[in-house]
Amino acid sequence: VSKRLVAIASVMTGLWISTGARALADESCSAATAAGLMQSAMLDQHSFDLVSGLSTEVGERLAGTGAAVNARNWAINELARAGIEHIHAEPFTLTAWLRGAETAEIVGRTIQKLAVTALGGSVATPPTGIEAEVALFRTYAELIAAPEGSLAGKIAVVTQRMVRAEDGGGYRAANAIRRRGPSEAAKRGAVAYLLRSLGTDNHRLPHTGALNYDDKAPRIPAAALANPDADQLERLAAGGPMRLKLVLTPTERPNAEGWNVAGEIPGSEKPDEIVLIGAHLDSWDLGTGATDDGAGVGIVMAAAKLIAALPRHPRRTLRVVLFGAEEMNYSGPAYTAAHHDEAPHIALAAEADFGARRVYAVQVPAGVLKSDFARRAGEALAPGGAFIDYRPATGSGDDVAGLQDLGVPVASLRQNGLDYFDTHHTADDTLDKIDPAELAQATGAWTAFVYLAADCDVDFRAVASKSGE
Amino acid sequence: VSKRLVAIASVMTGLWISTGARALADESCSAATAAGLMQSAMLDQHSFDLVSGLSTEVGERLAGTGAAVNARNWAINELARAGIEHIHAEPFTLTAWLRGAETAEIVGRTIQKLAVTALGGSVATPPTGIEAEVALFRTYAELIAAPEGSLAGKIAVVTQRMVRAEDGGGYRAANAIRRRGPSEAAKRGAVAYLLRSLGTDNHRLPHTGALNYDDKAPRIPAAALANPDADQLERLAAGGPMRLKLVLTPTERPNAEGWNVAGEIPGSEKPDEIVLIGAHLDSWDLGTGATDDGAGVGIVMAAAKLIAALPRHPRRTLRVVLFGAEEMNYSGPAYTAAHHDEAPHIALAAEADFGARRVYAVQVPAGVLKSDFARRAGEALAPGGAFIDYRPATGSGDDVAGLQDLGVPVASLRQNGLDYFDTHHTADDTLDKIDPAELAQATGAWTAFVYLAADCDVDFRAVASKSGE
Repeated sequence: VSKRLVAIASVMTGLWISTGARALADESCSAATAAGLMQSAMLDQHSFDLVSGLSTEVGERLAGTGAAVNARNWAINELARAGIEHIHAEPFTLTAWLRGAETAEIVGRTIQKLAVTALGGSVATPPTGIEAEVALFRTYAELIAAPEGSLAGKIAVVTQRMVRAEDGGGYRAANAIRRRGPSEAAKRGAVAYLLRSLGTDNHRLPHTGALNYDDKAPRIPAAALANPDADQLERLAAGGPMRLKLVLTPTERPNAEGWNVAGEIPGSEKPDEIVLIGAHLDSWDLGTGATDDGAGVGIVMAAAKLIAALPRHPRRTLRVVLFGAEEMNYSGPAYTAAHHDEAPHIALAAEADFGARRVYAVQVPAGVLKSDFARRAGEALAPGGAFIDYRPATGSGDDVAGLQDLGVPVASLRQNGLDYFDTHHTADDTLDKIDPAELAQATGAWTAFVYLAADCDVDFRAVASKSGE
Repeated sequence: VSKRLVAIASVMTGLWISTGARALADESCSAATAAGLMQSAMLDQHSFDLVSGLSTEVGERLAGTGAAVNARNWAINELARAGIEHIHAEPFTLTAWLRGAETAEIVGRTIQKLAVTALGGSVATPPTGIEAEVALFRTYAELIAAPEGSLAGKIAVVTQRMVRAEDGGGYRAANAIRRRGPSEAAKRGAVAYLLRSLGTDNHRLPHTGALNYDDKAPRIPAAALANPDADQLERLAAGGPMRLKLVLTPTERPNAEGWNVAGEIPGSEKPDEIVLIGAHLDSWDLGTGATDDGAGVGIVMAAAKLIAALPRHPRRTLRVVLFGAEEMNYSGPAYTAAHHDEAPHIALAAEADFGARRVYAVQVPAGVLKSDFARRAGEALAPGGAFIDYRPATGSGDDVAGLQDLGVPVASLRQNGLDYFDTHHTADDTLDKIDPAELAQATGAWTAFVYLAADCDVDFRAVASKSGE
């Protein structure tokens, strides 16, 4: 992959030299400038250096902890080095959830340790744990079909496996198993809940992630099993009843502080129109947050740096927002609340939060699918190996979902996510999982697209034409 | 792979039907019988069922623990079901080494947890741990070159990476880093020792394994870092001095009991000549010992079962030995001591202890390289995708090394080990890592070869011919 990407970048250099430099000063919405930016990103690999710095010097950075302060300071410093202006941190409060001990073991006819990790937001077990018989369901639908009271005193275990797919659709399809499963099990009497990790790997590294308790059900402790451990429980359950002991001792700290860090490249002609690009600074605590979301942070900061270095700023203001608490969903609502009145001025928003692999498609708002803008963006992205999707964007990351609800148009840069859920939310989310050349291609696609979005005369709120495809 | 192997087995069925059944009763050293056995193993996949049973019902089975008793009982039961005779357990004593807590973290300018696991045999740190400055060496040679006293008060860290190779040669080449490194560091003043895991993966699952303390050096605590954590230390070390805190609390239990479980298929003509095949029942405690060495156990037990079911037993006695404490090297010496006087009667010995992938080559003793036996074995193995190597066997597993020292010839069935060290000695050594079709092929190669070794009139002690290749 790397060699091919470098070859692509080299080919693009020709285009840049012949037309790019000349075009820069005067032509706006320039395909040549977009192509030149993409090529620059693919050659300099600055985004990888940023991920490396964040995931090495700061490491994990769970929202509400001291590490999150380090991440905030790192971001402010790097934005300044990138030539970004109006840099500031916007504070908000959150309830920090802090992992404790987490162990599980099969007890009885065989004693075996299981690899588990608490779900974000889970309540604790008693310090000595919960020991109970297992009620194992191979699908979530089987759990939902269980009658009320049928799980009384039991530990419910759902071993349904999420499906691997390039666009990550398998995660969304399985998400309720993690988010809603604990309360669904509790409604049926369960005293604790385990699910097979929402992950596509087969390693003994369970995948954490937030749950959402239902106010109508008791809050029971909940954790994810590593995939091989879910397999083991399925095999053992076939041999008869089985008991588990589960210990989870997470704690919560209310009124902790978080920050959304932001900066701008003021627009040269329409500074009051904003193109907002974001990623999230926080990470789960198990790994070092390299792909989730160090990669996104690297992408948007490197894109902004390249655009800031252009001889002329794009016509619209480009705003970079590094969200401080995406994983437990505090930063998006905080940003939306603080910028509610500004929403009509945000021309477009996009969040990079899907790992470090190449961008293969860009989804734009429905109204501009057939516009000159889309055609030009498609031409700029093609040499780097991406296209404008025929389907419009329907979302672009949890942190901008609130803005979207306020009518802000969004774009979605689709990255290859076939292996994203191998390491997502696990201890294995570390720098070695990132191919610098793929990350550079993704950065190039972002840079080219964002430049055009900020510099072209395009209304992303335009109403979609109903005429044929 | 699976489909191709099944296709091979189907082709072989023809050979078996046309000649195998007829040959069985009278012809000894029959290529057709060997081919038929190989085909049977490839179709029935019994070895996979055995690994599944052992790794699921018993799970991890560290020598000297209650789980090892379960493993012994499981083995006796399964040998009986396989039609093996003279089944018995030969006890020996060992010092059980039991893992305790194991944590490591970077302290100072950044606080980060590291994934570590104690080396087998390591002494403990104080319960509150050891905190000290790091002396990082990117190669073992750099550690060896460090002057005496130069590591006083420090934690020595060696981050050399082992090399991936089909025959596992990279493990042997790096083995001293784990086995000898702790004492070499201690001789230079170090208070603790960490190495990059001897493993070819990039997961946060460190690889354990035994160390060998040198009597001339203080015994210092020693652990392995997961590969991504070794990378992280290398990057951080480039930024200046760094301190680590290490907690390891393993304990030892002397005079624990272990067992080598053995059984036989008495020879039909020369029962006092023994072909010994083995594997080891014990495993490290982190995973469930599926590839190390549940796979070997499945291979040799399934091979013995098929051979026991022949209408006529092979001429020599086939002995199966399931060694009870290979990982800390107690079972081989115990077996050698107990069977010292029998060594001249052991015609050939071979241990299966290199995972669950296909056998691609068989190495025989030097003296029979150009024999009719080797030619016939080569013909039998070829349809299943294996050949007789032009290089003689130089060893065949740690448990038979002592017999080899007493002059017992050995054979080595070479399996593809390209990914063996991805999971070896880690929590990730679980059943899902095994491809049943590849394991069945390996079992087939073992069965065919072992049948010929036991039924052919061949002297494995023959002196090698010096005439040209």
